[in-house]
Amino acid sequence: MAVNVMDVAKRRGFFWPSFEIYGSCGGFYTYGPLGALLKLRIEKMLRDHYINKEGCLLLEAPVLTTEDPWVASGHVESFTDMNVECTKCGEPHRADQLLEEKTGKSSEGLSLSEIVGGLKSQGIKCTKCGGELGEPYDYNLMFRTYIGPGKNKITGCLRPETAQTTYMPFRRLFEIGRKKLPLGVIQLGRSYRNEISPRQGLLRLREFSQAEVQFFMESEGAKKHPMFGRVKRRKLSALTKGDQKKGAKEKPMTVDDLVRKKHTNEWIAYHLATAWELFEKMGIDPGRLRLRQHKDDERSFYSSDTWDVEYMSDVFGKIELVGIAARTDYDLRRHQEFSKQNMEVNIEGKTFIPHVIEVAYGVDRPLYCVMESNVKIAGDRVYFSFPPSVSPYQVAVFPLVRKDGLPKLAREVYDALTAAGFYALYDQGFIGKLYYRQDEAGTPFCVTVDYDTKKDRSVTLRNRDDQKQVRVKVKDLPEVLGKVMNGQLAFSKAGKPLKG
Amino acid sequence: MAVNVMDVAKRRGFFWPSFEIYGSCGGFYTYGPLGALLKLRIEKMLRDHYINKEGCLLLEAPVLTTEDPWVASGHVESFTDMNVECTKCGEPHRADQLLEEKTGKSSEGLSLSEIVGGLKSQGIKCTKCGGELGEPYDYNLMFRTYIGPGKNKITGCLRPETAQTTYMPFRRLFEIGRKKLPLGVIQLGRSYRNEISPRQGLLRLREFSQAEVQFFMESEGAKKHPMFGRVKRRKLSALTKGDQKKGAKEKPMTVDDLVRKKHTNEWIAYHLATAWELFEKMGIDPGRLRLRQHKDDERSFYSSDTWDVEYMSDVFGKIELVGIAARTDYDLRRHQEFSKQNMEVNIEGKTFIPHVIEVAYGVDRPLYCVMESNVKIAGDRVYFSFPPSVSPYQVAVFPLVRKDGLPKLAREVYDALTAAGFYALYDQGFIGKLYYRQDEAGTPFCVTVDYDTKKDRSVTLRNRDDQKQVRVKVKDLPEVLGKVMNGQLAFSKAGKPLKG
Repeated sequence: MAVNVMDVAKRRGFFWPSFEIYGSCGGFYTYGPLGALLKLRIEKMLRDHYINKEGCLLLEAPVLTTEDPWVASGHVESFTDMNVECTKCGEPHRADQLLEEKTGKSSEGLSLSEIVGGLKSQGIKCTKCGGELGEPYDYNLMFRTYIGPGKNKITGCLRPETAQTTYMPFRRLFEIGRKKLPLGVIQLGRSYRNEISPRQGLLRLREFSQAEVQFFMESEGAKKHPMFGRVKRRKLSALTKGDQKKGAKEKPMTVDDLVRKKHTNEWIAYHLATAWELFEKMGIDPGRLRLRQHKDDERSFYSSDTWDVEYMSDVFGKIELVGIAARTDYDLRRHQEFSKQNMEVNIEGKTFIPHVIEVAYGVDRPLYCVMESNVKIAGDRVYFSFPPSVSPYQVAVFPLVRKDGLPKLAREVYDALTAAGFYALYDQGFIGKLYYRQDEAGTPFCVTVDYDTKKDRSVTLRNRDDQKQVRVKVKDLPEVLGKVMNGQLAFSKAGKPLKG
Repeated sequence: MAVNVMDVAKRRGFFWPSFEIYGSCGGFYTYGPLGALLKLRIEKMLRDHYINKEGCLLLEAPVLTTEDPWVASGHVESFTDMNVECTKCGEPHRADQLLEEKTGKSSEGLSLSEIVGGLKSQGIKCTKCGGELGEPYDYNLMFRTYIGPGKNKITGCLRPETAQTTYMPFRRLFEIGRKKLPLGVIQLGRSYRNEISPRQGLLRLREFSQAEVQFFMESEGAKKHPMFGRVKRRKLSALTKGDQKKGAKEKPMTVDDLVRKKHTNEWIAYHLATAWELFEKMGIDPGRLRLRQHKDDERSFYSSDTWDVEYMSDVFGKIELVGIAARTDYDLRRHQEFSKQNMEVNIEGKTFIPHVIEVAYGVDRPLYCVMESNVKIAGDRVYFSFPPSVSPYQVAVFPLVRKDGLPKLAREVYDALTAAGFYALYDQGFIGKLYYRQDEAGTPFCVTVDYDTKKDRSVTLRNRDDQKQVRVKVKDLPEVLGKVMNGQLAFSKAGKPLKG
C-alpha cells in the first residue's frame, strides 16, 4: 500500500495549506516545524555545494522588483498561460489543461486559436459548475503591485525567477570576482507565478523557493569543465531529444557518452551529474530519476540546449526537479539593450558579452521527493528514512523518566550535541511514544539517558532504521555520531550492542 | 575620521542599491557575496539560539497572503503614514517628516488635521522642486496585488510582518507542540512596507528581513521565566518610560532591578537581556546599546508593555534593532473573531486564549550595526573586526605561489576546513593583496601554504587583528582553529610564532 505523503506531511506538521483558518487559497503552503527544518537543510546542502565545491559567489536580491528587468527578459510579453473563465460561476481554468483532460492528448505547442477551436469542437464546459466557457485569452502570470504612493508610483513585480535578479548586477559581480570567467553565482529565495488554477499541492505553488546558479562563461569555447573527470564514468538514465523523436525510452548512458556522442557539452553534462549526485545525497531514490533533454520545439527560443532532471512520482507522475540550460548571451544582451549599460567584458584582448549556463533548482519539489522516497512502512511503524544530511533532526535526546536528575543529565547531553553542531532535539515522555514520534519525524538516532548513565556515564543510542541499540560513553557521543553519520563507522560498531 | 560604512559596503560588494542598471528604486538593496554570507550567519545565530536554547519551533509561511489576516490584525485599517504630494512634480513626502524637518520638533502623536495645519502655517513647500503641496492623506503601507485571474481574483497582500502569519496556524502549532504552554515559534523571512519616501539605505527598506519569535503563554501568571537566573545579574543601560517622562537619561540597571522595581516582567526582562547578549555575540558594540521602554502614548493600544533595544549610530542616530512586546491576547482573539475558528486552549481545566510575548528582530539593521561597530582603521589598513561567529568567511586559504603543486596542497587544506564545517574561502594571487582583501572582508584568519608545507606539513596561520603569524600542523588546523575561535586557545599559543 502506498502512503499518501501529503497526508502524513499534514498530520505531522511538515506542511499544510496556508491561511487555513480563513479557508485557504490554492498555491500557498506553510512549512511547519519539521518541514521548515527539512527545507533549511536541503537549501544548506545546495548552497554549501555550489559555494564550497564549485566556487560560486552568493547573492541575495529583493523579490519585489521594478518592471524593467521583466520587459528586457521577455516576461512582460510572454510569461503567460491561456485562461478561460466560466461565464456562469467565474471559475478560471487553464484552457490547454481542459483540452488535454478531455482529449487525453498533449496540448503542448498549440496556438491560442487552435486551443479555442479545440474547446469549441469538443463542447467543453466548466468543470466546476457545467456552465458555458468564455473566450480564452493569454494571461500574464506575474504578480504586480505599485511601489510608492500617488501620481509618481511605479509598477512593481514579484520576480518569476531569481535568474534576472542575478543578471542585473552582473558588472558588479564580475568586478567582485576579479574579472575572471567562468564566474558562478548562486541565489536562493522565493519566486512567484500567479497560476490560473493551481493543484498538486507542493508541486505547483504560487509562491515557491528556488536555488538558481548562473555560470557566466566565455562566449565561445571554454566548454571543457575542469572537474569533468570526477563524474564522467557515472552511468545515468538519460533521454535525449533524438530518442524522444524516435519514440524511444530513456536508457543508461555514461556522462562521458553524453559528451562524446555530442548530445551536450561538458558543462551541462557535469552539472546534470552533479545535480543527480546531490539528489541522491538528499535521499531521493535514484531509480526514479532520469535526465531528459528538451526537444527543439519545447526549448526556450534563446536556449541552445536545455535538460531537466526528472523524478517519477507514485502520486504525481513526472516531476521536474532542476533545469539546466545554455542560455547563450541572450539575457545579458537584452539587459544591455534595455538598460543602455555595457555588459561586455574584456578578457585577454577579447571583448564580448558572456554566455550563461543556468542550473535552476526548485526547492519545494525536491523536498516533496525526499519525503516520497523515504516514507517507509514496517508492520505498524511508519517512518521516514531520511539520511542524516537532510533529516530535520539528526538526533533526539530523552531522559528515561522525568525525575531523579535524569532530565538535567539529558539536557547536558543535548547541549553538548548542539554545541558540536548537530541538529538535535530534546524531548521527554514515555520512551515508546518518543521513539514512535521520532520515527515519523525521520530522526535517524535517538539517545536515552537512564539510571545507569549516572554510574557509567554511558547512554543508549538507537538506530531508526533497524531499531538496534548500542551503549556509548557520553564523552564519545559527538565523535561516534559524526562517524556513523558520515558512514565512517557502522552502527553495530558504534558501541556495546544491547538486546532489543 | 569616521569611515562611511555604506561606501565601504558598496565598494567591497557587501550590498548596493538594487536595479542599478535601470536607475535604482528607493528602499531596495541587494546583498552581494560578502553581505549575503554575513546575513546568512546572523540569521543562523538567531535561529540556532531560539531553537536550541529557547526550545522554539521553526515555521516558514508564505510572504504573499490573502487580505483576511490583515483585516483582523488592523493593518488594513491603520497601517498608514501621512502622505503629501507635490502638485507640481508629484514627489511624495511623509507629511510628519516635512513638518519635523522644518520645526525641529517631533511630530509624534499629532493628528492628520494638526499636521495639515502645521504644514500650512509653516508655509512648507516641496523639498524637491519648491512646488505647492497637495492635501495630506493617510496612505496604507501594504503592498497589494491580485491572486488568480479574472472575475474571481482576490486581493493579495505582501505581509508587513511575519507575526500574523505565525498566529494564523496557532492551533496546528499548539497540537504539534503537544498542547503545552509556553510555546515558542520562530519565523525568519521577508516582510514589506511600501514607504512613502525611503532614505537611510539599509535601515529603511521597502523589502526587509525579520526574525520574529512568538511566545504563546498562559493569559495570567506564568510570567516567571525558568532561565531568568542566568541573566538577572547583568547590568544594562536602560531607559524606562518613567524616566522618559521625567526627562531623565538611560542608566545602568541590573536585569533583576527591572523586574523587582516593577518596570517590566521576567519574560520581557529575560528576552531583553538575551537579545542584548546576541547583539554582543554578533560583535555589535555594547557601549552603543540601550534598552528603551515605549511610553504609554507611543505603545500600540493592544500592548501592555513594549521595549526596544536601540543602537546609537555615528551616521544615522538611534536605530531600533529589536522590539519586545507583550501583545496580550489581542491577536489570537481578533483571528478568532474574524475567522470564527476557536483559538482557545484548555490547560489543567482552564479555558482561555493565550497571550503573546513577541521578540521581533530586524535582520538588515543589526547587520548594518555589526559593520559599523567593526570597521577599523589602523594606518592605511581598513578592516572589519567581525567575530568569527558571524564573519562572512572564518578562514581563507592561499598558496604562496601559483606553481610547484602549492595550489593543489592549498586546495586540500581548504577542503579539509570546509568538510569540518568552517566557512572557508580559497584564493590565489600576491599574498600581500590577498591579506588586504581578506582584511576588508573581515576574515579573522588566513592560512598560507608554502614550500615548507611540503616538508613539514605545516602552514602559516595569520591573525587579522594584530597581523601576527604562527605555524600550525595541517592535521591540527581544524582543531586549533576551532579552539581559537571559541576563545579556548589564545592565538599566540596556537602554534610556533613567526616573525612578522
